Amino acid sequence: MAGNTFGQLFRISTFGESHGTAIGVILDGCPAQLPIDLEFIQSELDKRRPGQSKITTQRKESDTVQILSGTFEGKSTGTPIAMLIPNEDQRSKDYSHNTDVYRPSHADYTYDAKYGIRDHRGGGRSSARETAARVAAGAIAKLLLKHHGIEIFAHVAAVGKITAPNLDGDNIAELLATREDNIVRCADPATAHQMIEFIDSVRKDGDTVGGKINCIIKNCPVGLGEPVFDKLHADLGKAMLSINAVHGFEYGSGFAGSEMRGSEHNDIFLATGGAPKTLTNFSGGIQGGISNGMEINFTVAFKPVATIMHNQQTINAAGEAAEIKGKGRHDPCVVPRAVVIVEAMAALVLADHLLRNKTSRL
Amino acid sequence: MAGNTFGQLFRISTFGESHGTAIGVILDGCPAQLPIDLEFIQSELDKRRPGQSKITTQRKESDTVQILSGTFEGKSTGTPIAMLIPNEDQRSKDYSHNTDVYRPSHADYTYDAKYGIRDHRGGGRSSARETAARVAAGAIAKLLLKHHGIEIFAHVAAVGKITAPNLDGDNIAELLATREDNIVRCADPATAHQMIEFIDSVRKDGDTVGGKINCIIKNCPVGLGEPVFDKLHADLGKAMLSINAVHGFEYGSGFAGSEMRGSEHNDIFLATGGAPKTLTNFSGGIQGGISNGMEINFTVAFKPVATIMHNQQTINAAGEAAEIKGKGRHDPCVVPRAVVIVEAMAALVLADHLLRNKTSRL
Amino acid sequence: MAGNTFGQLFRISTFGESHGTAIGVILDGCPAQLPIDLEFIQSELDKRRPGQSKITTQRKESDTVQILSGTFEGKSTGTPIAMLIPNEDQRSKDYSHNTDVYRPSHADYTYDAKYGIRDHRGGGRSSARETAARVAAGAIAKLLLKHHGIEIFAHVAAVGKITAPNLDGDNIAELLATREDNIVRCADPATAHQMIEFIDSVRKDGDTVGGKINCIIKNCPVGLGEPVFDKLHADLGKAMLSINAVHGFEYGSGFAGSEMRGSEHNDIFLATGGAPKTLTNFSGGIQGGISNGMEINFTVAFKPVATIMHNQQTINAAGEAAEIKGKGRHDPCVVPRAVVIVEAMAALVLADHLLRNKTSRL
Amino acid sequence: MAGNTFGQLFRISTFGESHGTAIGVILDGCPAQLPIDLEFIQSELDKRRPGQSKITTQRKESDTVQILSGTFEGKSTGTPIAMLIPNEDQRSKDYSHNTDVYRPSHADYTYDAKYGIRDHRGGGRSSARETAARVAAGAIAKLLLKHHGIEIFAHVAAVGKITAPNLDGDNIAELLATREDNIVRCADPATAHQMIEFIDSVRKDGDTVGGKINCIIKNCPVGLGEPVFDKLHADLGKAMLSINAVHGFEYGSGFAGSEMRGSEHNDIFLATGGAPKTLTNFSGGIQGGISNGMEINFTVAFKPVATIMHNQQTINAAGEAAEIKGKGRHDPCVVPRAVVIVEAMAALVLADHLLRNKTSRL
Repeated sequence: MAGNTFGQLFRISTFGESHGTAIGVILDGCPAQLPIDLEFIQSELDKRRPGQSKITTQRKESDTVQILSGTFEGKSTGTPIAMLIPNEDQRSKDYSHNTDVYRPSHADYTYDAKYGIRDHRGGGRSSARETAARVAAGAIAKLLLKHHGIEIFAHVAAVGKITAPNLDGDNIAELLATREDNIVRCADPATAHQMIEFIDSVRKDGDTVGGKINCIIKNCPVGLGEPVFDKLHADLGKAMLSINAVHGFEYGSGFAGSEMRGSEHNDIFLATGGAPKTLTNFSGGIQGGISNGMEINFTVAFKPVATIMHNQQTINAAGEAAEIKGKGRHDPCVVPRAVVIVEAMAALVLADHLLRNKTSRL
Repeated sequence: MAGNTFGQLFRISTFGESHGTAIGVILDGCPAQLPIDLEFIQSELDKRRPGQSKITTQRKESDTVQILSGTFEGKSTGTPIAMLIPNEDQRSKDYSHNTDVYRPSHADYTYDAKYGIRDHRGGGRSSARETAARVAAGAIAKLLLKHHGIEIFAHVAAVGKITAPNLDGDNIAELLATREDNIVRCADPATAHQMIEFIDSVRKDGDTVGGKINCIIKNCPVGLGEPVFDKLHADLGKAMLSINAVHGFEYGSGFAGSEMRGSEHNDIFLATGGAPKTLTNFSGGIQGGISNGMEINFTVAFKPVATIMHNQQTINAAGEAAEIKGKGRHDPCVVPRAVVIVEAMAALVLADHLLRNKTSRL
Repeated sequence: MAGNTFGQLFRISTFGESHGTAIGVILDGCPAQLPIDLEFIQSELDKRRPGQSKITTQRKESDTVQILSGTFEGKSTGTPIAMLIPNEDQRSKDYSHNTDVYRPSHADYTYDAKYGIRDHRGGGRSSARETAARVAAGAIAKLLLKHHGIEIFAHVAAVGKITAPNLDGDNIAELLATREDNIVRCADPATAHQMIEFIDSVRKDGDTVGGKINCIIKNCPVGLGEPVFDKLHADLGKAMLSINAVHGFEYGSGFAGSEMRGSEHNDIFLATGGAPKTLTNFSGGIQGGISNGMEINFTVAFKPVATIMHNQQTINAAGEAAEIKGKGRHDPCVVPRAVVIVEAMAALVLADHLLRNKTSRL
Repeated sequence: MAGNTFGQLFRISTFGESHGTAIGVILDGCPAQLPIDLEFIQSELDKRRPGQSKITTQRKESDTVQILSGTFEGKSTGTPIAMLIPNEDQRSKDYSHNTDVYRPSHADYTYDAKYGIRDHRGGGRSSARETAARVAAGAIAKLLLKHHGIEIFAHVAAVGKITAPNLDGDNIAELLATREDNIVRCADPATAHQMIEFIDSVRKDGDTVGGKINCIIKNCPVGLGEPVFDKLHADLGKAMLSINAVHGFEYGSGFAGSEMRGSEHNDIFLATGGAPKTLTNFSGGIQGGISNGMEINFTVAFKPVATIMHNQQTINAAGEAAEIKGKGRHDPCVVPRAVVIVEAMAALVLADHLLRNKTSRL
């Protein structure tokens, strides 16, 4: 049973390979009457687009999205919204030297073993190019969330061991401006400068490096999340872990919380006269799997990109020793382009749970 | 849309509240002809059972499981297997003092806000008592995995800041014996001793502490996992994050991997003459979301239990300031009892993907 | 992939075999705060109960239902509602003579062939006893529908060739009183009398006979149904066809409509000053798969029960010729007891679509 | 919750409106390594194509299909197969006179009421044009079934009251040749002639007429179907009822079976030395919801097309009386073009259950 669909009520199915004709997505379940802003969708894709700066891959793709269905006179109609992104730069010959060998820490071997057939051109389906389809659908999710006043903001929190200061999330607009002002998408200008220098030096080494992205969600209504399995953070975790290269997810106090005592970790409720607030937010805005109205906060860890410009030992499909040459185009660090992917997946989870919560009571 | 079902082909639906009549589970999709060993299921439940040692809650429950359907002459028949665990110790009056107040960092407030009604007895549905149903179903998943030679082994890797040495997982039987030889379920005897002392001191303080559980899966066949969304590690992550008190999940190199370079992180393939192996295993046995035949390895972070024996400030349902008394029975540290829950959820994910993979090719 | 779950948002999973410990159901997705009337649920089960009259099977079962979870102080809490119906009359020895032979037109052979194992006691899972679990869940669906003013009324429209006059459905209360006033559950007293006489004579012959049930749904709101696959009538059709012994389903003009011309079949819209009405209702209250506010009307065809009191030629599990004796207890005609099953399944479909429609627009 | 996905393991999601940019489908779950014959897919679409004869609509569409993903070197890769069919003849102005009025017995009113917005061009999403996407996916399902030796054959069994003789299905190849030899797709030449004459006369009247399609499935393996809800005939029924204009479904003895006695209806098993056969086949090849290896047989009833060339009374969106002119292009009888749609949906159900059955036992 294949797994190319995500979400229950706000549900996407993506398709497409790195070097096929096109990639795309069907979004089923978008409520009718939502204004669909094509320019906004394109602007989101532009943030993920390859070739946008010196610290990203130089593959050339305009990533121009077309809407094929599901809208009428600028609004969603309640029918499936299909979006298509043609592949332009299908330089398959770049990859012809890899036809028969398994690249280390890529999905070449596992796809071949699972399916008995492998589209070796640029990683085929396992390429992170597929995430463009997620970003397109996530942009529509963001439009729905915006309609409900919910804001999502992700930013690069670490590149290798270079770590940005924690954010309090009180001024998303300002943080966003700062983030987009630098090519690494860190919300702290000084740290951004260090990160860019470091990525550039790693790139010159023909190497890659990992990093972390932190995400903040503001104005999430109370009540999103469906225990006991589809807890809000469990679905956020799955969404993040489904993104290429992600090796870890934590929310609220996260791994550090495992070292704390209950007496310091408990978030004390405050009588506010209005909606309850808590003094601290180690819960990360989610209690019992359900949003509590506080800021949602989670962090995602990315491993270093596996494609490096060094020659590496490996094996071929016959299991024999082989050498793989360091060639091709790649990102020295994936996190700058992944910021908008993290936001897209978070938006898809939130949109889904927003709809799911509509039937929780009479 | 509620979320009490987990899995696609090997699928469980759980029910029941902490202080209701019973909790239980329906398992739909267990292949026919699997020998169902009731004693084994009960022995798994005994590992999760409250009151098993001085470092667990003193609530008394025998947690005796009954099979209501789906087996005939000791084997599964392909029809739904329903299992029931009656609640015995329903001391609801213990909780009567909490009827109107929201316990800090519990799900009291969010359930009330979401559903407009709350079964306040012992946390109702949000109680970790629900996980007994998961353990019962997970035991059947383990029987299926055992039939295929797959082994799952979890152990306490940290209590607070006390951390056990890393395991290499080469001798599961021996590790298991060591683990079950101590009440904290750490596979290293010296560390276990320290952990027990520490938990006991925390308990005497009326406080609680978090911890980490590491899980190793041996002999997992190549090919499990369904990209691009239902990647094996994404489903493992969701499964773990759905367990009460879990705040983080990482696999393979995990968060530490985000600090590494590609040239050190890449797992080089070795020509073995047989199934491919890799020199290192930073991939944690999963590449491109699909198992590669190496050992699967992940770690789960648990926050400290929210119920403490201290008085705490909070609010009541009217939003007014209130105080909550430190009373009741609770675990000072959840990880010793959670080891078998982690194994159960991992087994459910593996069983599901084992079945899902059966249709991946002609 | 097993198929014991029905519905998407108002979703049931049933379990249990004819002669096991118990049968039951988990209902997940019932909105919180619905008053759950246990007496009403039991009264619905009583209409399906065996042994209720001379024209039904004489198997003795009180079919007493217990609610195990999901309610608090008489209301649904939004958590799974589990219901249990213990099996009392498990006279398995009645069936010991059928252990090895395949009863004609039963599911004995196909279950054995599919699963490689068969619980032969009373048909195991394939017994219509399973439908008691559907009736229990359907009763809660009816409570939800009643809350929204929707009424469901089914009745026996034919037994063999004896056919009742068409109903116009304008007075459901009166029709219901008439229906419950006779043991065959036909809403026309004169026809009911003939049907009962006929079934009784068939019973004396040791034979069985088929029949038809018609169902009317009043006050269904406009907008239920989710094209293009989950059309309201498509889900009603599947629900009905999943009931034991059903061989046909039609709605609105049905099979007769295939002989008509468009100019006579089209339902002309009338300007009413209020909600649109149509002059005729060949559409059966559903257009384009979506309810249009008119009366929903469908008919279900049941084949004759396969268990007869005659000796029959058959084969055994080894494929050898064998004879099967006419023994045991059975219904001469299934439709009187199936009326409430049809209503239950219709209620489950309507409840599910009522919830699904909540997210169709902003 | 929208409903544009069909199937569980062999799963399609369709998109597109009558007069949008394109329609299409994503097929997820097609096993890897299946040869994908694009010419065959196109030939199936050609059978559904408008404008193919004097008794079909004159709308001009080449319905040329493109495969966008999921194949490599002529074979499926296990990743989603996306197919696109651009809309060519988007003569929206033909429909501009219907912008504001609700066509009788169409989905205009219900879509408007449900979604609050309506793409009025040619019926938008409710147009039967969407079924082209089903035919494309169904063609791939047929390729999978052919690989397993399963044959599906549908044919026009009735047009209005003109009924073809029953088929025994022993020579599918010959029946197919006869069927394709006439434009009404009836397998009996003499009846075909009458049907064509009749449809032509109806067309000249500016009217439409209903009909019936019968479908035969040969060589279906024993064991397909997943009780208790996803019975094979229940899923076939839902599939058929989801096709535009279908008002009824019956299998095996169908509605006629409701008039029979058990002693005549029971299908007696025969000792054959090999796989069991039955003397009669009132079960229609399915017992207890599971295929028994006999020929599967079902019939589908279609209402007359609602678009007629007569002026009709109706209402507009404001609820006021209005008249609708008889204009546009339409089919006088839908069944000749629907034959391949019935086959496609049957193939999708069979392919899905073929995969589902792979996990029914160890």
